[in-house]
Amino acid sequence: MGKVFRVEYPIRFSHCDPAGQVYFPRFFDLLHDALEDWFNSGLHVRFADFLLEQRLGTPTVGTHCDFLSPARFGDTLAIDLTILRLGNSSIELDFNASIDGRACLKCRHTICIFSTQSLKAVPIPEALRARMLDYVGAPGGSAGAADTPV
Amino acid sequence: MGKVFRVEYPIRFSHCDPAGQVYFPRFFDLLHDALEDWFNSGLHVRFADFLLEQRLGTPTVGTHCDFLSPARFGDTLAIDLTILRLGNSSIELDFNASIDGRACLKCRHTICIFSTQSLKAVPIPEALRARMLDYVGAPGGSAGAADTPV
Amino acid sequence: MGKVFRVEYPIRFSHCDPAGQVYFPRFFDLLHDALEDWFNSGLHVRFADFLLEQRLGTPTVGTHCDFLSPARFGDTLAIDLTILRLGNSSIELDFNASIDGRACLKCRHTICIFSTQSLKAVPIPEALRARMLDYVGAPGGSAGAADTPV
Amino acid sequence: MGKVFRVEYPIRFSHCDPAGQVYFPRFFDLLHDALEDWFNSGLHVRFADFLLEQRLGTPTVGTHCDFLSPARFGDTLAIDLTILRLGNSSIELDFNASIDGRACLKCRHTICIFSTQSLKAVPIPEALRARMLDYVGAPGGSAGAADTPV
Repeated sequence: MGKVFRVEYPIRFSHCDPAGQVYFPRFFDLLHDALEDWFNSGLHVRFADFLLEQRLGTPTVGTHCDFLSPARFGDTLAIDLTILRLGNSSIELDFNASIDGRACLKCRHTICIFSTQSLKAVPIPEALRARMLDYVGAPGGSAGAADTPV
Repeated sequence: MGKVFRVEYPIRFSHCDPAGQVYFPRFFDLLHDALEDWFNSGLHVRFADFLLEQRLGTPTVGTHCDFLSPARFGDTLAIDLTILRLGNSSIELDFNASIDGRACLKCRHTICIFSTQSLKAVPIPEALRARMLDYVGAPGGSAGAADTPV
Repeated sequence: MGKVFRVEYPIRFSHCDPAGQVYFPRFFDLLHDALEDWFNSGLHVRFADFLLEQRLGTPTVGTHCDFLSPARFGDTLAIDLTILRLGNSSIELDFNASIDGRACLKCRHTICIFSTQSLKAVPIPEALRARMLDYVGAPGGSAGAADTPV
Repeated sequence: MGKVFRVEYPIRFSHCDPAGQVYFPRFFDLLHDALEDWFNSGLHVRFADFLLEQRLGTPTVGTHCDFLSPARFGDTLAIDLTILRLGNSSIELDFNASIDGRACLKCRHTICIFSTQSLKAVPIPEALRARMLDYVGAPGGSAGAADTPV
């Protein structure tokens, strides 16, 4: 309960701007990579199958991100993912990224489960929801029945 | 007073994901493009000179973005930029993007003025601040002297 | 006969690497933007409709690109497009990009027309082919009937 | 002699276009990632130090790439790197990328060693050259003394 999913990625040349630091939109690529790897390795649902076979997607509803310190070419970025709130179809994620223990960014990021066939938000599939529950429980998180859908 | 800076960009193939919609990190590229064009055409400060000659930058302190409806390949995205709050070195921008009048995203986005020589936040240069004042004044915005720096 | 399609794009912050120059993969984004704009404005075929309604695509078969001089943040890149060879389903494009008349890159770039339904290369639609013929004729180009398909 | 450097990367959502396949400019990002990892793990020269401390870079002189079959979201791309030709300051690399043994792309890619201080091509540092020699020797490759600089 309250599991944290951690991944580490090298900061690539392609992530960096003329100041030699990660250009902020590239951080969102890295957060999406972490989401993919969480599905693949944390939830044991192959993200490509989720999209291509189950015809579901995870569009971003909103993101609130604070950039706390820069990341530079050659750094290793550690990203921790937990769930703050598990709704009916929405999932509020908490990303904390750091470099050698120094906080780099903090992001509250809401996605929903979306059918690419009906083009509507749909409830989180039960088997997936059961696995996601393991990642709920960080301080301030909740998975109450009263959660409202997106 | 309360001027709005508007730019329009085509949604490119390169912005779109396997669902045929803008992959959300690419929206932040487009918001940064709008920031550049605001400097160039709205504030009449060449952004490349600002960075390369004045040795100043505009790192992102935080961004709060709600994605309201999808943008698809072939759409034209109109981005409106105003200032919500002008601090000592920080600037809180309000981006509203739409497609044919349909709201697409709303983003409260805070940057600061940063010296790439001292590697510290610095006050907004006075001449730049004077030009920025024109864009303050949307409902809820302020440019009061009591504003705290970043 | 032998028309040249020219577009100009600003070199954006997002295109540039820690050396302050365009990171070479971003040039290919810009060449693809030029291809899109050529369809839209040169061939008068809306590229988004071509993909989404006609269900055709233009995958890249190969690209041979020489980078002749750097492009920097704030530069304006002019891209000239002509056709070197018009095959049955393949099109060999010639891109020449320059900055204030200084050659920046030269790229021989081959695409083909591809059905995203049959997942096969298909002949260039006749109406499109007729319009493309205007852009054939640079030295070395050809549109002979003996051209082999991809 | 004739060593091959191999890396494998997952094809990410962010690499893929509306057809669900890797958008070709993203392949060049992946080739650059392979180049970085070759420096770091194959040549045992930390690429970030090479750039930031040694003030050297590896600009691309030219690239000849044939795209042989598509890569799709969820695939694992294996990239093999060898040296075709080791010049005075230039290095001609041979990239072969495949998915489960199916050839995906083949790229002859020329970089040079460049000083970001003098802004000129410089000879490959001797210690680096010695390590690079291990990767020369694929059919058609050479490292002869008569090689001309870029």
